[in-house]
Amino acid sequence: MLLASFEPRTRRRYKGAQTRLVEAWQGPAPYPFPPTPDPMHEGPATAPPDRRWWSWGEVGRGLPAEQVQRVKDYLLVRLGAPPDAAGPVTISSLRLPPGRLTPEDVAGLRGLLSLGAVSVESEERLVHSYGRSYQDLLSLRSGRLHALTDGVVHPATAEEVAQVLRFAEERDLAVVPFGGGTSLVGGVDPLPGTHRAVVTLSLERMVDPLSLDEVGRLARFQAGIRGPELERYLNERGFTLGHFPQSFERSTLGGWVATRSSGDALRREGELSQWLRGIAVVTPRGTLRFEEPLPEATGPDPFALFPGSEGTLGVIVEATVAVRPRPEETLYRGTLFPNWESGVAAGRELAQGHLPPFLFRLTDSEGTALTLEGRGPGPGLSGRVRERIEPRYLEFKHFDPAAMCLALQGWEGTPEEVSLSEREARRVARGNGGLDLGRAFTDFWRRERFAFPHLRDELVEAGWMVETLETAAAWSEVTGVALGVRQALEERARAGRWALLLATHLSHVTPSGASLNFQLIAPRDPEDAPGQARGLVEAGLEAIVKAGGKFSHHLGVGRDRLRWLRSQRSAVETTMLATLKQALDPQELLNPGKTLPQGEGPSHGSG
Amino acid sequence: MLLASFEPRTRRRYKGAQTRLVEAWQGPAPYPFPPTPDPMHEGPATAPPDRRWWSWGEVGRGLPAEQVQRVKDYLLVRLGAPPDAAGPVTISSLRLPPGRLTPEDVAGLRGLLSLGAVSVESEERLVHSYGRSYQDLLSLRSGRLHALTDGVVHPATAEEVAQVLRFAEERDLAVVPFGGGTSLVGGVDPLPGTHRAVVTLSLERMVDPLSLDEVGRLARFQAGIRGPELERYLNERGFTLGHFPQSFERSTLGGWVATRSSGDALRREGELSQWLRGIAVVTPRGTLRFEEPLPEATGPDPFALFPGSEGTLGVIVEATVAVRPRPEETLYRGTLFPNWESGVAAGRELAQGHLPPFLFRLTDSEGTALTLEGRGPGPGLSGRVRERIEPRYLEFKHFDPAAMCLALQGWEGTPEEVSLSEREARRVARGNGGLDLGRAFTDFWRRERFAFPHLRDELVEAGWMVETLETAAAWSEVTGVALGVRQALEERARAGRWALLLATHLSHVTPSGASLNFQLIAPRDPEDAPGQARGLVEAGLEAIVKAGGKFSHHLGVGRDRLRWLRSQRSAVETTMLATLKQALDPQELLNPGKTLPQGEGPSHGSG
Repeated sequence: MLLASFEPRTRRRYKGAQTRLVEAWQGPAPYPFPPTPDPMHEGPATAPPDRRWWSWGEVGRGLPAEQVQRVKDYLLVRLGAPPDAAGPVTISSLRLPPGRLTPEDVAGLRGLLSLGAVSVESEERLVHSYGRSYQDLLSLRSGRLHALTDGVVHPATAEEVAQVLRFAEERDLAVVPFGGGTSLVGGVDPLPGTHRAVVTLSLERMVDPLSLDEVGRLARFQAGIRGPELERYLNERGFTLGHFPQSFERSTLGGWVATRSSGDALRREGELSQWLRGIAVVTPRGTLRFEEPLPEATGPDPFALFPGSEGTLGVIVEATVAVRPRPEETLYRGTLFPNWESGVAAGRELAQGHLPPFLFRLTDSEGTALTLEGRGPGPGLSGRVRERIEPRYLEFKHFDPAAMCLALQGWEGTPEEVSLSEREARRVARGNGGLDLGRAFTDFWRRERFAFPHLRDELVEAGWMVETLETAAAWSEVTGVALGVRQALEERARAGRWALLLATHLSHVTPSGASLNFQLIAPRDPEDAPGQARGLVEAGLEAIVKAGGKFSHHLGVGRDRLRWLRSQRSAVETTMLATLKQALDPQELLNPGKTLPQGEGPSHGSG
Repeated sequence: MLLASFEPRTRRRYKGAQTRLVEAWQGPAPYPFPPTPDPMHEGPATAPPDRRWWSWGEVGRGLPAEQVQRVKDYLLVRLGAPPDAAGPVTISSLRLPPGRLTPEDVAGLRGLLSLGAVSVESEERLVHSYGRSYQDLLSLRSGRLHALTDGVVHPATAEEVAQVLRFAEERDLAVVPFGGGTSLVGGVDPLPGTHRAVVTLSLERMVDPLSLDEVGRLARFQAGIRGPELERYLNERGFTLGHFPQSFERSTLGGWVATRSSGDALRREGELSQWLRGIAVVTPRGTLRFEEPLPEATGPDPFALFPGSEGTLGVIVEATVAVRPRPEETLYRGTLFPNWESGVAAGRELAQGHLPPFLFRLTDSEGTALTLEGRGPGPGLSGRVRERIEPRYLEFKHFDPAAMCLALQGWEGTPEEVSLSEREARRVARGNGGLDLGRAFTDFWRRERFAFPHLRDELVEAGWMVETLETAAAWSEVTGVALGVRQALEERARAGRWALLLATHLSHVTPSGASLNFQLIAPRDPEDAPGQARGLVEAGLEAIVKAGGKFSHHLGVGRDRLRWLRSQRSAVETTMLATLKQALDPQELLNPGKTLPQGEGPSHGSG
């Protein structure tokens, strides 16, 4: 048989690929990442070192050790000591359940794909079965795994993806698309029970730039390309996309589309719907291609349904994005506001003005204290900032150190435009009682903006709970929602007897409103660490929804927030989406148990 | 019976409403339009006079008579004399087929709605059965009517709309939503044969502003509100939406959403998806409400399916839009470019720059000649412009009068911003050989920008064919597409022995491309006026699609362009949309024969 004759070579090559991938998560071999460009496109790129399978990122990519220590010291004073935390288990100590793919399944998949593209090894299954939420880290570190994918395939082309879906449909396999694996809401979890087995479809090999139209400023990529590779490709040609979510280092273009990702700098890049100009998406019922560089009036547009579909309607295999030239000049400044309300007022005035900054990020007093303490009193820039805002100076300015809020702003464009808009921002800041801090706090932010998930690794290692929540709110509701969430979380924390630090920041400003992001830190509850985090997150989401907000601004739905989605979707909407699911994926192969209503169509052919 | 007891009063009130409506189209009683504000928000509003049932607009709303005469004179020289045209028939001479609504249908509908909201009078049916394409004008003027709705209902609330849809479903009536009735593609035509009868659902009574959030800059309206009323409401409160399609005076907010309308000033207002923040839409399966002032990541978004649905998925009854303060300063200037290519190059440079004008509208040499001739040599501003560009001056500037192209540009914002961006535009114009014309040509454009459909009325009356076509093209393809359309149309015109004037303009510029608009004028073919226009339009659409363009940038699909839609939609897309149609409108009541694939579900209960 033709398939069989390939088997030995397949095995050999596959073994190499598996080793490569698993080593990447285990260290110490270098992870096959491209050099990461400076996210703000200035200065040379450096190659990231290795990464670990139980944590967010590579070793050594986080903050300097003394800075991490300062954060830990502050948390100790603020919240008390966390419990002793066990280190992560070793992979070899894990007793992973055997995969449910039959030899025929594996041989069939290998026959469809290039050599080394199918794996059923335990380690590879493990690293493709979890996102990177706090709950995921707890599961991975403790080895208490709730589910495991049965195999991982690495197609290289849209046609191969289509073949995998056809095969999966024939053989009753669920398929979970997997980009960067950075979901914080269980978006890539392989849920057992819906089909005979689960295959994770990794887009790791689909990373090629496909075209760049320099005149029309459109770039097309395979969807598996990660943030740093995408920006590097564009930067080298004088362009940028400018999409910098917190997960930038590890997340993929396809993942951004699938989850309706938002970057921090919303006013510059625009919403996803403004920069996304086309996709190719493979569904069990065929491949759809949309190229819409310009507005058109040609009936209802099915294109619009795929952003946010989180792998449930099809596998996004290509995307076309609107790019722009790298700006001539970029400028950042920090501003200290006397309190949250004045910062919000300034943010709104700027976002609704004619010359808004592309970045406005306001941290509340808790977050500001954490930032200042984390920066420490050293001799560097942060030391100088601490001097500037020392008590006597603040008193003179009528600042209450317990209420003051730090805002970071950024502008870009021609030198003339930057100067004009920065001048406008200073005027607005002054009008709202703001104190200009110069570049000190922005330099560190630019250097360390993607470091938070790495810091989380260190804190989790040290026994802390680190969770997150986000929503968006209209300007008139921003403060009410923030307050409602704080009250709900503090109440829940009191009930659980957990000391809690809640740092809130406002970002992604638009003329209508902004997003609110909440970082929750507490000493881990040694009795029930997952339950502690779940209880707090659910209390926060309840407060958000009660205040009229949506349960997600940019993290998505995944598995974890499905019940919130259900509570916010009307019956007619549910019918519409269930119908669509039936039309594209009648056997409900694609990412079961996520985002889309299921079980409304005819039962799939499962045995 | 309760319904019956209302009958006499219903009759009385209905008679009044019917007279009001029909008079509106017949003149000379004033049309119940609100005073039209100056579309660019400057100066006081004036009340428009009456309007006619067989033409676009109100009497006296067009260009001054001497200007119309100059255009006619120019066309006569350029194209030869048009045939003698018959005047429009009188309504009383028309023998309209009887409506197919039974007395039970009528009584039932009257029982659902407020007094006077149901009409089966011939005149009212007539004015709600056609859009305002050239073909529609031919049909109406000649009295050769291809179809007629069987009755018109005027619900006042979302609940009444829902009741009408339920009733229609029970009694096998097709329902055609009707906003301003300005479709140029047969979008509101009542097509017989799919259901027992057709009812047109007019949104004329659903015109109320519902809310204005001045902090969040969001305004909600009932969907039947027309452009002038909407802008007047916002202007009086210091805001503007800034959406000015050619049909602004007569089209409605709901119609804009249903057809994915574009305004001329695209860089200012953004695409519809950027300013539309919510809708309420009544479907036969329930009412959907979307309020999305901010980005969210909550799964695939069914909201996005309704823009462009052209009444086939539901009746859009409310819409929420992002508004902004009226600009402090607005500035317009005209520029003359030596040829099309240099104008396109400047347009692209500006649209891709940091400080783009909100308006860039480039007319090709044919259109420029028509504009200049239409303006005449008089003593006013236009006369001065003609002086400035008199042959010797142009020769000195190396301008070929047969090649030169007029561009109109506009800027707005703070005085500083306007001055900065206008300076940038002058630099770009100079770099591309442009000649600054000052404000002369922009003043007339601002005064007369909505006059073209009225001029069309005059030309149709005088025996001319006046048709239109549009598409969008990437910057690298703009000139190729324009040329392809010209060649195809000239070839078709030669084959038909029709003298043809084709004026092209480029507008709606974005960083990726622009729209191309084609105005076709020819002496009407007395043998087959509809066939002449259809032949030319189809030849143009063929050329557009052959060049890789979409068949519509902003006019929509309607009945006329359905075959183009079919040719551009993939089988999977068709399945998706047919499925959605089934989910929301299983009996396919809503606007049959338009936009959405039909006849794929179970047959409706028609007798």
